[in-house]
Amino acid sequence: MTVSGDLLIGGIAVRGTAAKFSAINAATGAAMDPAFAGATKEDVEKAAALAWEAFPIYRETSLEQRALFLEAIAEGILAIGDELIIRAMDETGLPRGRLEGERARTVGQLRLFAKEVRDGAFQELRFDPADPDRKPAPKPDLRLRNVALGPVAVFGASNFPLAFSVAGGDTASALAAGCPVVVKAHSAHPGTSELVGKAVQQAVNASDLPAGTFAMLFDAGFEVGQALVADHRIRAVGFTGSRRGGTALMKIASERKQPIPVYAEMSSINPVLLFPHALRSRGEAIGKSFVSSLVLGAGQFCTNPGLIIAIDGEGLQTFIASATGALAEAPAQTMLTRGICEAYQTGVARLNGHSAVRQLAKGKPGEMQQATATLFETTAAAFLSDPALQEEIFGAAGLVVRCVDEAELTRVVDHLEGQLTIALHIDQGDMQAANSLVPTFELLAGRILVNGFGTGVEVSPAMVHGGPYPATSDGRSTSVGTLAIYRFLRPVSYQDFPADLLPASLRNA
Amino acid sequence: MTVSGDLLIGGIAVRGTAAKFSAINAATGAAMDPAFAGATKEDVEKAAALAWEAFPIYRETSLEQRALFLEAIAEGILAIGDELIIRAMDETGLPRGRLEGERARTVGQLRLFAKEVRDGAFQELRFDPADPDRKPAPKPDLRLRNVALGPVAVFGASNFPLAFSVAGGDTASALAAGCPVVVKAHSAHPGTSELVGKAVQQAVNASDLPAGTFAMLFDAGFEVGQALVADHRIRAVGFTGSRRGGTALMKIASERKQPIPVYAEMSSINPVLLFPHALRSRGEAIGKSFVSSLVLGAGQFCTNPGLIIAIDGEGLQTFIASATGALAEAPAQTMLTRGICEAYQTGVARLNGHSAVRQLAKGKPGEMQQATATLFETTAAAFLSDPALQEEIFGAAGLVVRCVDEAELTRVVDHLEGQLTIALHIDQGDMQAANSLVPTFELLAGRILVNGFGTGVEVSPAMVHGGPYPATSDGRSTSVGTLAIYRFLRPVSYQDFPADLLPASLRNA
Repeated sequence: MTVSGDLLIGGIAVRGTAAKFSAINAATGAAMDPAFAGATKEDVEKAAALAWEAFPIYRETSLEQRALFLEAIAEGILAIGDELIIRAMDETGLPRGRLEGERARTVGQLRLFAKEVRDGAFQELRFDPADPDRKPAPKPDLRLRNVALGPVAVFGASNFPLAFSVAGGDTASALAAGCPVVVKAHSAHPGTSELVGKAVQQAVNASDLPAGTFAMLFDAGFEVGQALVADHRIRAVGFTGSRRGGTALMKIASERKQPIPVYAEMSSINPVLLFPHALRSRGEAIGKSFVSSLVLGAGQFCTNPGLIIAIDGEGLQTFIASATGALAEAPAQTMLTRGICEAYQTGVARLNGHSAVRQLAKGKPGEMQQATATLFETTAAAFLSDPALQEEIFGAAGLVVRCVDEAELTRVVDHLEGQLTIALHIDQGDMQAANSLVPTFELLAGRILVNGFGTGVEVSPAMVHGGPYPATSDGRSTSVGTLAIYRFLRPVSYQDFPADLLPASLRNA
Repeated sequence: MTVSGDLLIGGIAVRGTAAKFSAINAATGAAMDPAFAGATKEDVEKAAALAWEAFPIYRETSLEQRALFLEAIAEGILAIGDELIIRAMDETGLPRGRLEGERARTVGQLRLFAKEVRDGAFQELRFDPADPDRKPAPKPDLRLRNVALGPVAVFGASNFPLAFSVAGGDTASALAAGCPVVVKAHSAHPGTSELVGKAVQQAVNASDLPAGTFAMLFDAGFEVGQALVADHRIRAVGFTGSRRGGTALMKIASERKQPIPVYAEMSSINPVLLFPHALRSRGEAIGKSFVSSLVLGAGQFCTNPGLIIAIDGEGLQTFIASATGALAEAPAQTMLTRGICEAYQTGVARLNGHSAVRQLAKGKPGEMQQATATLFETTAAAFLSDPALQEEIFGAAGLVVRCVDEAELTRVVDHLEGQLTIALHIDQGDMQAANSLVPTFELLAGRILVNGFGTGVEVSPAMVHGGPYPATSDGRSTSVGTLAIYRFLRPVSYQDFPADLLPASLRNA
């Protein structure tokens, strides 16, 4: 497959006419061929109109047809072959192993949603039979099913060029729900996006679906995304990115004539609580595994463990000694984009310049777009008094918050904003202290883990990759796992419908 | 039980110190004793603080304990006896039969949610077993359950002094979900509110629940409600009322440091489509049943049929002749408040002054706070060109939109805003035309009915009393029926938890 730099609208490749931009080789900083042409407002208009036109047909495809379509996308992605991995390596600086794993996850995710579609439980079919003899008034026949919301705007994420981009979790769950998708591709991996986008487009065509079922637009700036979210035919938004980007989209969506739901996954520092018994018995091991999680993928994970909270003592000292030792050996890693690398360095400099923060260790220096992992420490008192210490630094930067006692640790926990994950490291002796904090964690995060780290998000029925604001815009939802399909559905009730008029799924009680 | 005019906070009656107001006898316009004292910001603060304190205990009550509590509220409401009905009749002008029916519905609703709580399906328990041998990475043990959002602010609705007020659908579903409730009582029926509020408070005390599980506040103005929605301990809002009121609360909620969901049921004109074959065979009968629904409860229902859409012809003439005949006999009815009556009269005067609208019929004249039912007609062309003709007139006012043909009727349907209900009147010969419109109706409304009217909302598992904006603030939800409980829940995932640390419901897979 050739990367052409075109937009994908209406079943074909279309040359954009807005400002051009290039993919940048993350390792060398060199611009890559070909140039990508941005979409105009007219392109947005056309993609939204076609999606709206496709919607009534696509949402009423049979479950089997929709499942086969999702599986065809998965096959198409695999069929691109190594070209996809190589292009993604160049554009993102992520290593081959990671990208091959991510491809497997992306394909697995599409297949899991195919299974979910075939299962059909997401339709939430409900039947209340009539009772004509009921007093004082007869009971009507009521039947309920979930229907798709409408065309969904999906924003590709920089840090998952496959699994949360063009055919990633948001797209897979929206398509599974019966919603056409218009993707705003992330400009950090446009070639990867195009290759995957063409695979989706081919699956649309091969599955005899309306051409508007899928479109993909490029933009060097923000206009295309903003216009998409404002378009009256777009009925929901899936986004993974910064808090600034997410809240900007929330604002546009809430100011529309008809407001729409925005599912934005925005920021999280994923606190890790180290309890005294665990620290005493395994401080060294925890320190090493913490650093492994911190530096994984250059720290460019939404669930990267950015905050360590523990009570001062010998155990914490052991942990810190182990973590600083491991971190000092951590090689510099190429970050996804120059902008992300600069933002990381600014964040690290901000902590270095903070009077109440001390640098504990840093990894190996790097060049170009490479970042050096860094570990800091501060006191609970300082953390409690400066909200800026709770801001996410996207990348491999960690901050240890030292608490004098359990009461102070509890105050730090109570002070936390909404998170994607909270991890506890405990031994049997810590059980009581942990138990008393779990209710608080439940209100703070979408996922709580014991003796592990949040990186490595399972795609399964019991996963919640979500959490209270500002971790996400809507803490009632998850963007990973099969529950994600419910974001794009709403219930409709049918009263006293003759069989001929009922949707097929509701015909037999 | 005596009506004292007090606020209910922390398990006891508390005298308010803000501005006083009186209940008004709807039939006579006379102020009733005693005066009600409004809540101060400090009262709001106290109620929210106590609700927050109660939350961790209340949300972890056993399903049985919570179900018994809901049933105790139902018993308590019945135990008030006729005093409740008489007070509600005086305050609202609604007749005895209606209020006795509404009490039965309110009690039935609480018992239905008790059943839903015992059933436990709303917890959405999910189990993904671990697989330590999985390659390339072991699979963790993941378990999921829904947890309650937190304290909920409930706004009593003027038009359902029992079923959508202090212990109505919003309160019942929030309490069922495990959320403490702070009610802002509607100032149009404060004595009714207090009687029911005391029954809830007694049930809280008798069930050994924390005193903050329930509170009720009065306010002659808007400050208390606004302060409640802005309070950081309030985590969701249930509201039924005007579009202006609902959108004001949406704005406050979205501008909080931590935005929260608002479930506002705001406005709907509940279009009724009359198809040609049905009109020809049953035009007269449909006309009569339409008027019965239109004037029911002085038209003060969210699902009142305010708009008739049909193709011109003999059948429509028969319908109009029948409806105008029936309407002319309709007695004037006392409306809930003077303000509501004046708004109704302003709305009717607006249509009477509209150059493209003609008055077809009106009911008997009334006095004081009584309203005269009115029926108007206009052309599809006029309806399409003036958005104001789509505005709800709360009360027994109907507008017939005459279309020249099916194409114009379709344009009128496409022009409609989001609705709670859409009703179709069809015979076998209309099936094809109806079939082609059902997909559009599904996107427009929460409930679609055949050969009936939207008034009379069944409280059952397959009911949707909701719909796309502006019918409600969140078209993904229903405020009536058992699905309403899901508005106040969010999923949490537990990874690799030892049994000791897991919530009891997740301990055994």
